[in-house]
Amino acid sequence: MSYRAPVAEIAYTLRHVAGLEQVLGGTGDLGADDVEAVLEEAGRLASEVIAPLDRAGDRHGTPFRDGSVTTAPGWQAAYRGFVEGGWNGIGATPDFGGQGLPHLVSAACTEMWNGASIAFGLCPLLTAGGIEALTAHGSAELKERYLGRLISGEWTATMNLTEPQAGSDLSALRTRAEPAGDGSYRITGAKIYITYGEHDLSDNIVHLVLARLKDAPAGTRGISLFLVPKVLPDGTRNDLRCSGIEHKLGIHGSPTCSMAFGDAGGATGWLIGEENRGLACMFTMMNSARLNVGLQGVGAAEAATQRAVAYARERRQGKAPGATEASSPIVAHPDVQRMLITMRAYTAAARGICYLTAAALDAAHGPEGQRAHDRASLLTPVAKAFATDIANEVASLGVQVHGGMGFVEETGAAQHMRDARILAIYEGTNGIQAMDLVGRKLALNGGETVRAQIASMRGAAEALLKDGNPGFGHAAARLRSAVESLDRATSFQLRAAASNRPEAALAGATPYLRLFGLAQGGACLARAALASSAAGKTGGVSGADAGRIALLRFYAENLLTAAGGLEESVIAGGGFVDGAMAALDA
Amino acid sequence: MSYRAPVAEIAYTLRHVAGLEQVLGGTGDLGADDVEAVLEEAGRLASEVIAPLDRAGDRHGTPFRDGSVTTAPGWQAAYRGFVEGGWNGIGATPDFGGQGLPHLVSAACTEMWNGASIAFGLCPLLTAGGIEALTAHGSAELKERYLGRLISGEWTATMNLTEPQAGSDLSALRTRAEPAGDGSYRITGAKIYITYGEHDLSDNIVHLVLARLKDAPAGTRGISLFLVPKVLPDGTRNDLRCSGIEHKLGIHGSPTCSMAFGDAGGATGWLIGEENRGLACMFTMMNSARLNVGLQGVGAAEAATQRAVAYARERRQGKAPGATEASSPIVAHPDVQRMLITMRAYTAAARGICYLTAAALDAAHGPEGQRAHDRASLLTPVAKAFATDIANEVASLGVQVHGGMGFVEETGAAQHMRDARILAIYEGTNGIQAMDLVGRKLALNGGETVRAQIASMRGAAEALLKDGNPGFGHAAARLRSAVESLDRATSFQLRAAASNRPEAALAGATPYLRLFGLAQGGACLARAALASSAAGKTGGVSGADAGRIALLRFYAENLLTAAGGLEESVIAGGGFVDGAMAALDA
Repeated sequence: MSYRAPVAEIAYTLRHVAGLEQVLGGTGDLGADDVEAVLEEAGRLASEVIAPLDRAGDRHGTPFRDGSVTTAPGWQAAYRGFVEGGWNGIGATPDFGGQGLPHLVSAACTEMWNGASIAFGLCPLLTAGGIEALTAHGSAELKERYLGRLISGEWTATMNLTEPQAGSDLSALRTRAEPAGDGSYRITGAKIYITYGEHDLSDNIVHLVLARLKDAPAGTRGISLFLVPKVLPDGTRNDLRCSGIEHKLGIHGSPTCSMAFGDAGGATGWLIGEENRGLACMFTMMNSARLNVGLQGVGAAEAATQRAVAYARERRQGKAPGATEASSPIVAHPDVQRMLITMRAYTAAARGICYLTAAALDAAHGPEGQRAHDRASLLTPVAKAFATDIANEVASLGVQVHGGMGFVEETGAAQHMRDARILAIYEGTNGIQAMDLVGRKLALNGGETVRAQIASMRGAAEALLKDGNPGFGHAAARLRSAVESLDRATSFQLRAAASNRPEAALAGATPYLRLFGLAQGGACLARAALASSAAGKTGGVSGADAGRIALLRFYAENLLTAAGGLEESVIAGGGFVDGAMAALDA
Repeated sequence: MSYRAPVAEIAYTLRHVAGLEQVLGGTGDLGADDVEAVLEEAGRLASEVIAPLDRAGDRHGTPFRDGSVTTAPGWQAAYRGFVEGGWNGIGATPDFGGQGLPHLVSAACTEMWNGASIAFGLCPLLTAGGIEALTAHGSAELKERYLGRLISGEWTATMNLTEPQAGSDLSALRTRAEPAGDGSYRITGAKIYITYGEHDLSDNIVHLVLARLKDAPAGTRGISLFLVPKVLPDGTRNDLRCSGIEHKLGIHGSPTCSMAFGDAGGATGWLIGEENRGLACMFTMMNSARLNVGLQGVGAAEAATQRAVAYARERRQGKAPGATEASSPIVAHPDVQRMLITMRAYTAAARGICYLTAAALDAAHGPEGQRAHDRASLLTPVAKAFATDIANEVASLGVQVHGGMGFVEETGAAQHMRDARILAIYEGTNGIQAMDLVGRKLALNGGETVRAQIASMRGAAEALLKDGNPGFGHAAARLRSAVESLDRATSFQLRAAASNRPEAALAGATPYLRLFGLAQGGACLARAALASSAAGKTGGVSGADAGRIALLRFYAENLLTAAGGLEESVIAGGGFVDGAMAALDA
C-alpha cells in the first residue's frame, strides 16, 4: 500500500482546530472552499506522483560520482511536475511569482509532501527556508536575481550551517569570508550535513552559507550570512563542490552532502542582511524550518499509521475475544487496537499543534499582531519536538504492528522508522527545542504568552464538560488535570529560570516540553471532537465524527494519563544534576 | 569505541539483586569467586573477540549464493574460539559434556555475548534452545547422536516455527510429517524467518521443526516437533535447503532464512517427545529463549549506553551551566545527562529483572521448587518485554545523544537501534508477552505468585525507608507508590480476567506489563543501592556505590513517576475497545 493524503481530516483540522475562517478573514477574498480545492489538488500530487517514488528513493539512494549526485529514477520528472504545478511558491510573496497563500495552507501541503516522501519533501523544504531569508533580508539586487527562480522552484536552496567541529553550536564556526572589493565576498571552508547540497533536480543550487569575516567579533555575534550559488550569474561554475555524501540510517532518497567552498581561492558569495548579523537572518529561516520539520513528523506519522492500519485489517492471526472465525484480522485484537489508536491519536494531536502554530504565524500579520507572533514563537519548539518525537514512536509502533514482517525492509514499515529518526535531530535537536522553550519562550511577555496558551487549553477542557457528550468518557477531567499539571510545571520553570540555578529548569526541559505537547495536543483533539459532537446534535453523527470523539477519549484516558508523572519529573526530578557524574561513572 | 563487558556491575547485580549466594548454596561446591572468574573470562572473550566483529557483520551481511550463506570475515574464527573455550555448553548438562553452571551464570554470559554482538550471540542462543528441548524431551538415541555435539557447539540448532500464513499463531501451521516406516518421518513444507537456518560456522545444522501429522487434530493440539538435520547420520545431505534470506532492518550479521523442506519427496526427521505434543516441547525452548531475548535487550542497551557515554564525554558543544570554558563536553549539559542516566537506569533495571528470573529458574531445582518455578514463569514475559522495550528506547536515545552523527551509519549508534528493533518482535511479540502475563501468569496459584512478588517489591521500598540514606531522595516514597499502583492494577486485571469480558484485561495488558517492569526494576535498583549504602556505612562509599545510589534516585524520581499514569490506563483506559473501529475508521 502507498500513502493517501488525508485531505478530509486535514481540512477538518484547519477549520475546527486551527481556525481557518479567522485566518482567511484576515487575508482577503480566499474562501474555505477555495482552500479545500487547493488541498485536494495537493493531495492528488502527493498520493499519486510523489508517494509512489518514495520506496525507489530509499533503495536507489543518491549515488555520488565525480562530484555529481544522481537522484532515483522518476524523481526528476516528479520534481518538474511539482514545479510546473506552482506548488513550490504557494506560500511565497506574489511580488516574485508566489501565490501568497496563508502559512496554514502551505503547512497543510508540507504535511502532504512529506507524508508521501520525507526525502522528496526535504528539497522544497530547504528552498522555502532560502526564500524566506532572502525575502526578509536580501538586497533588491539579490532578490531580483534569485528570488523568482527559487519561488518557482527552478532553482533550489540549501542551508549551510554545520561544520565538523560545530554542530548545534554555531559560535564555533570557522568558514571564512573576505570582501572581494567588488561588493562580493570570497568564501572558504568546509560544511557538513548539507541536505540537497548537490543533486540533479535543478540547474542551479543557491547555498546560504554562514561564515565569519576576518575581524568579526568572536562567537555568534561575528557570523554573517552569504548567498553562494553553484552557478554564477555569468554561467560559470562557482568555486564550490560536493566532496562526499553520508551513508545514513534513513532518508536515503535525499543526498546529505559535505561541501567544500574555495578550493581554488574562494567561492563567490554575496552578503544577505548586514555583516555580523547572519544569525538573525538564519533564525528567520530556522523558525519556519522548525515548524516544517514538525510537519514532516506529522506526515511521517500519518504514513506509518496508514500502512499499519491497512496491514492490520488484512493480516489474520489468532482469535480475537468474541470472534467466531478461527482466525481474526489482527485489527480485532485489543492490544493491536491500542497500538493503532495510539498512532492515530498522536498523529492527530501533533497535526493540531503544528497547524495551530501556522495559524498563529498568519495571525501575526493581522490585527492580533505581536501577540500572535509570540504565540507562534512559543508553540514552534513544541510543534517541532513533540511532532517529531511522536513520529518516531508512531513509526516504531508501525513496525511492531507488522510483527516479523515489520523488520523486513520489503514491507516498508521499517523505512518509516529509519526516515523519521532524523526529524528529532536536525533543525536543532529536540533537546535544544526543549531548552529554547524553557529558556526563552516561557519568558515571553513576562510569562503572559504561556499563561494565555494554558488558559486556552483550560477552555477546551471546560467546553468538553459543558458539552457533556457521554462518548467523551473521562476526557474533560483528564484534560483538565493535564492542564493543571502543565500550569504548575510552568510556574516551577518560570521560577527556576529566574533563579540563579538555571540547571533546575534545564534538567526538566524535555519532560516539560512533552507535558506541554501532550496537553496542547489534548486541547486540539478536544476542539475537533467538540465540533463533531455539535454536528451530531444538529445533524447525524458521521463515521468520522464518531471517530474523532473516540479518538479524544482514547487519547485522554490512555495518553494524557502520563501528565502527572511528567509534572513530577519536572518539579521534583531535577536533583540528578548533582549526582549525574556519579551515576554515569558507576 | 567498542563494547566492554561490564563484568563488575554484572557481578554486583548477581550478588546483591539476584541472590547469587543462595543460588550457589543450592548447587554445591561452586563459590561466588569462581563465578566471578568465569565472568571475567567471558567478559574478555566478549570484549576482545566478539565485539570487534560486530560492525563488520553489519556491513558484510550474510551473502546468499547457490544455497549457501557466508558470514563476515573473522566470524568463523571467533565462533571456533567460542566453541573451543567451552562457552557454548556452560549451562548444559554435564552428562553430555556441558558444565552445568546455574542459569544465573549462563544468563550473565548471554548478556555479554549479545552486548558484544546480537547477530553473533543469536547463533548460540538458538542452539541453547535446541539443547534444552532435546535434553527435556529427546529419546536416548537422539540425545546420543546430537546432544553432545550441540552442547560443544560443534553443530548448531535452529527453531523452525513460523510459516508465511502463521506468524505467532501456530495453530495455522501447514508443514506436514509422514511416518517413513523406519521410525523416521518425512517432512515437507516451507518455513520463514529461520535464524541461522543456513551458515558457514558449523558442518551441520540441527533444525527443530514444528509440523503436522496427517490425521492430527486441528489447531495447536495437532502439532509435533521433529529433529531434522542438514546432514544425515550417513553423511549425505538431507532433503532441505535454504531458499533465500531476508533483507532486514538490522542484525545483518546473522542470516534470516527461508527454508524449504522436502523438495525431493521429504526431509528425514525424527520425532522429539510424543506425537501431537510438539507445542509443549516448543514451550520448553521458548521460555528459556524468551529470557535470553530479554538478556539480548540488556546487552543491546548496555552497548548503546557505553557508546553514548563515551561520545558525550568527548564531544564538545555549547557551554554548560556554570562552565568556565567556551565549550563543554556535552555530558555536562543537564538534558544530555537526563538521556544518559535514563539509558543507564533502564539498563540496570532490566538487568536486575532478567537475573532475578534466571535465579528463580535455578531455585526451581532447589528446595523452593514449584514456587520458584512459578515465579520464573511470572517474570519471564516481563523480562522479555520490558528489557527489549527499554532496549529500543535506550538505543534510540543513544542516537539522539550523538546528534547528527547518530544518523550517520559510520558512528555505530544507529546500528544498535536497528539491531535492537527485532528484540521486541521475535520469540513472541511484546504484545503477546503482555497477554501471556495477564492471561496466564497472573492467575498462577490463584494470584498468590504475583501477590508474593508484589510483596517482595514492597519490601524493597520499606528497606529504603528504613535505611534512610539521604542520597535516595524520594526513592522510598516513589517506589512505594509505584508498587501500590501495580497492586491495584493487578487486582483489576485478576477481576477482569475472571469476568466474562477478557478484552478489558487484554486492552490494558501492555501498560500493565510496563508498570510491572517499572516497579520490579525499581525494586532491583533499590536492592543494589541498599547494598551500596550498607557498604558506605561500614567502609567508605566507592564511586560505584555512589553511582548506584544516584541511579536509584534518578530512576525513582524521573522514570517510576510514570507508574500512576500506567495504572490509570490499565484501570480506566480500556473503554476504547468499544469505539476502536470508529477511531480507526475516522
